Amino acid sequence: MEYCSHCASRLKIDVPPRDNHPRHICTGCGMIHYRSPKLVVGCIPEWQDQILLCRRAIEPRYGLWTLPAGFMEVGETVQEGAARETLEEAGAKVKVGQLYTLFNLPRASLVNLIFRAELIDPNVAAGEESLEVGFFRESEIPWSDLSFPMVRETLRLYFHDRKHGIFATHSGSIIRTPGPILRYQVIIDP
Amino acid sequence: MEYCSHCASRLKIDVPPRDNHPRHICTGCGMIHYRSPKLVVGCIPEWQDQILLCRRAIEPRYGLWTLPAGFMEVGETVQEGAARETLEEAGAKVKVGQLYTLFNLPRASLVNLIFRAELIDPNVAAGEESLEVGFFRESEIPWSDLSFPMVRETLRLYFHDRKHGIFATHSGSIIRTPGPILRYQVIIDP
Repeated sequence: MEYCSHCASRLKIDVPPRDNHPRHICTGCGMIHYRSPKLVVGCIPEWQDQILLCRRAIEPRYGLWTLPAGFMEVGETVQEGAARETLEEAGAKVKVGQLYTLFNLPRASLVNLIFRAELIDPNVAAGEESLEVGFFRESEIPWSDLSFPMVRETLRLYFHDRKHGIFATHSGSIIRTPGPILRYQVIIDP
Repeated sequence: MEYCSHCASRLKIDVPPRDNHPRHICTGCGMIHYRSPKLVVGCIPEWQDQILLCRRAIEPRYGLWTLPAGFMEVGETVQEGAARETLEEAGAKVKVGQLYTLFNLPRASLVNLIFRAELIDPNVAAGEESLEVGFFRESEIPWSDLSFPMVRETLRLYFHDRKHGIFATHSGSIIRTPGPILRYQVIIDP
């Protein structure tokens, strides 16, 4: 952020009165431009004992398998966003249920919310952002070809809970470890 | 949004290729400026059988009682944000526990996340945004002087669950009814 989106003047970084965080403040009109974390919302689409996954047709993680999920839009609920992403990426109509996982990605300023969801109709089709979609039993999950740690951890918790017949809402954080190799620390809250 | 925050050129509204939502697009550098819902995070601070509330020293709802909550900052987790807001507004140090309520406010493009939290120390003090803070037993909650529907619904669910000894994570939506009088429709998800 260099310029004010309201009046096009230069921005400066300063702590406003009665605040304790540095903000982008317009040197022209004085408007304060706050930065906010972003919400990613998605589903675990269930059909009988199978889960619907999508293979990514976009970067990052092109070609890897993922749960349908994406950025929440303004004006929708988290559940509406999760259903919309599932329709867009997997051509799948779902009834969104319980919030299943909340994962913080604080270095990326992202919060991931994944919901359990029942497929209304098993006729599905890859959307523009997917190479293909597929149904997977637990033994068929492509664990070494999953897109993000959030997807792997959500599926790991899901199959663990399914075995025990109790689905609680889980939360945790995924922290990128510094260095050239993509490594993550996963913390599941107690 | 009128101008590009990256290059100060005029923005236009158009649907980018491979997208299906109108976006703010820069007529100079082509950057797409996405709008995002915002996250409000807060706590139900518990001390023995009492709840800590703050009386708002800021608009909107000046003078009304509220749960400590506010906008999440970039770089923090939702739990860190909830603890920070509780410290800033009520001078209260808490151990943040389970996600308790998720409320959508789609007309305002807000998502509220409220966590159960244990007070570490009952020495509390009103912060800059609070007129006073106070401990309330269930019978003492100022139901007609609460700030927002989200606060009232969260407390209502909380005391209901406490009576039954089971605290599940709840979600729902709060929809502002059109018209000059502030009225809301509250939907609690099954």
